[in-house]
Amino acid sequence: MPKVSVKGQQMPESPIRKLVPYAEIAKKKGHKVYHLNIGQPDIKTPDVALQAVKNADISVLEYSHSAGFESYRTKLSQYYKNHGLPIDTQDIIITTGGSEALLFAMGSTMDAGDEIIIPEPFYANYNGFSTASGVNVVPVISGIETGFALPPIEAFEKLITSKTKAILICNPGNPTGYLYSQEEILKLAEIVKKHDLFLIADEVYREFIYDGDEHFSVMNVPGLEEHAIMIDSVSKRYSMCGARIGCIVSKNAAVMATAMKFAQARLSPPTYAQIASEAALETPQSYFDDVISEYKDRRDTLITELNKIDGVKVATPKGAFYCIAKLPIDNADKFAQWLLESYDLNGETVMVAPAAGFYSTPNVGLDEVRIAYVLKKEDLIKSVQILKEAIAVYNNKK
Amino acid sequence: MPKVSVKGQQMPESPIRKLVPYAEIAKKKGHKVYHLNIGQPDIKTPDVALQAVKNADISVLEYSHSAGFESYRTKLSQYYKNHGLPIDTQDIIITTGGSEALLFAMGSTMDAGDEIIIPEPFYANYNGFSTASGVNVVPVISGIETGFALPPIEAFEKLITSKTKAILICNPGNPTGYLYSQEEILKLAEIVKKHDLFLIADEVYREFIYDGDEHFSVMNVPGLEEHAIMIDSVSKRYSMCGARIGCIVSKNAAVMATAMKFAQARLSPPTYAQIASEAALETPQSYFDDVISEYKDRRDTLITELNKIDGVKVATPKGAFYCIAKLPIDNADKFAQWLLESYDLNGETVMVAPAAGFYSTPNVGLDEVRIAYVLKKEDLIKSVQILKEAIAVYNNKK
Repeated sequence: MPKVSVKGQQMPESPIRKLVPYAEIAKKKGHKVYHLNIGQPDIKTPDVALQAVKNADISVLEYSHSAGFESYRTKLSQYYKNHGLPIDTQDIIITTGGSEALLFAMGSTMDAGDEIIIPEPFYANYNGFSTASGVNVVPVISGIETGFALPPIEAFEKLITSKTKAILICNPGNPTGYLYSQEEILKLAEIVKKHDLFLIADEVYREFIYDGDEHFSVMNVPGLEEHAIMIDSVSKRYSMCGARIGCIVSKNAAVMATAMKFAQARLSPPTYAQIASEAALETPQSYFDDVISEYKDRRDTLITELNKIDGVKVATPKGAFYCIAKLPIDNADKFAQWLLESYDLNGETVMVAPAAGFYSTPNVGLDEVRIAYVLKKEDLIKSVQILKEAIAVYNNKK
Repeated sequence: MPKVSVKGQQMPESPIRKLVPYAEIAKKKGHKVYHLNIGQPDIKTPDVALQAVKNADISVLEYSHSAGFESYRTKLSQYYKNHGLPIDTQDIIITTGGSEALLFAMGSTMDAGDEIIIPEPFYANYNGFSTASGVNVVPVISGIETGFALPPIEAFEKLITSKTKAILICNPGNPTGYLYSQEEILKLAEIVKKHDLFLIADEVYREFIYDGDEHFSVMNVPGLEEHAIMIDSVSKRYSMCGARIGCIVSKNAAVMATAMKFAQARLSPPTYAQIASEAALETPQSYFDDVISEYKDRRDTLITELNKIDGVKVATPKGAFYCIAKLPIDNADKFAQWLLESYDLNGETVMVAPAAGFYSTPNVGLDEVRIAYVLKKEDLIKSVQILKEAIAVYNNKK
């Protein structure tokens, strides 16, 4: 019997998916489960995007250009320019989600055995894309104590070898909600220039920033043009995760020409979703104002409520819609499973994402969970109430 | 300045895309270009698929399950059963086009440095997916003399090494139009069982078979369950290439569990396109009858017309909608470029795909082109007329 690949065996399982069978158990018992574990927003997709698909006059659903609709790329470059980013049409290739943009970025810049440095905790699927690309992740730890700020330059430089090809950041961060300051981005720019590396920045949460802070993009650093690669996506911005549209952006012509070869091999990004994404660019500012204000409210509620639980430690996220919370428990994996399998408060329980899956270093973050604040305020309040009671019961039962 | 990856440098450019700048020249001159070079059918997408998207009641465009809609997978398994293939829901993962299914199949079964044997000429993007996966393609030549029949078993066995993990076929074939007989599939089954390999079959053209022949799938060979991986797609079947929906199918549970990890890393296939694809399963048989009869007519016309040109050799395709034609010219690359750049017959010219890009062995097929018969009959007749005149002019000018 032929065997699966070593790479396939090494592909990590999603830290969230592992809990799905336990969520099934909770649901079979008739328990209501509050999902704090996933980044699927409940926010309505802009009507202008949905209507564009309904009104599309299609007779043959054809391939698009491998780089995506020219009209969409042009409008998207204008969108970036409106946000102060000097991005032209030819600097953009439309991809099937931010996921494919990351795969293209890794494939275009790294070979099997090469290394990529990523501040952890990081988006768990970076592990998957790295394994699929044969690339080794070298984590640099950022801690809850510093609110997940950029580790010191020396921490990066200690890890750089002849195999290092890139540093990858998520800004603002999933799962931390941390927003890198201009100063931090400029520090990273110095490192990558000094060591001739790429700086890959996943900026899909750019719009989701609270407290009046400003996002500072890697595309905005003069002199970094040949090093900077930006990953973007419509998934969260317009609450259209199911579209599967993202893009890879760079001023480095060799990178773009190489990414284009990967793009041509898979022919084109999905046509319907491009129609929706191009139209979504017409979304009025009021939509974002409402959404940001809603998320800010939710964040404030979540953090206030979490801080009411004895022994919980949480860094207030400045952006995105996640936070990492350190809980007064022995093991978040066991706790998350127990919450679904054995616990309920008046027929309700919560599902959280154990944070260990967001670290690449073993045995770090074992008592941490990631919480996504993509639920209504009332539900968040209820969820944290359940979490509080659950922690007490869990710690008493031993 | 950081450099692109070695893999990225090795990624092949599409043999068709290379000609695009020359097609631009022809168009700038005001010449009409008949596209014999691409597999984008002009056939209308079934209304039932287009209407399903128009009528979809979506408020939040959400991720789907990573394996695709459960309802779609269930109906798809029923579709296969109706075609005599014993495929259950859990044997199917929905992918973003057949392209992603191929990537998942390679990633799940092969590591960097492993080898895959492919009868050539083959679909050019197999090269791209192999390079992206770090896998080495080992071609086994099938020739126009035998109509691109399966090479003898010994030809395969001579190429099998400890690195060989799979044999990949396209049935019916792009670019040859060849349909493997039941006997040929059983021969392949014997080889893969004897040498413990996977047999990956790209069967996306299954419906496009003429002359009353029957398609024999690798999923229909008893005892091959652990070896067979089928690649499928809605692109050609329903003339919806832009949907980007395909699937990977196997009875090998380890392969499917591994492919699922790749699927989870990229979250989900596109939602709109899945709605269209699920609805497309309701397409009435009359649609296919009309389409097949149209393609058969086109094929017969094309082959008849090509055979009228002195020195042209063509193997009548039994399926799909391509053929390889050997032309009485020195070099198809130069000829194809010249057709666009320097030739016209009353303001019209043709674009063909030089076949060398479909061979992995260097310097094979240099005088061959791939012709796709996705144009109306009148246009095919005109195109071949232009080709005939052009060959005479091209050969005289020297």
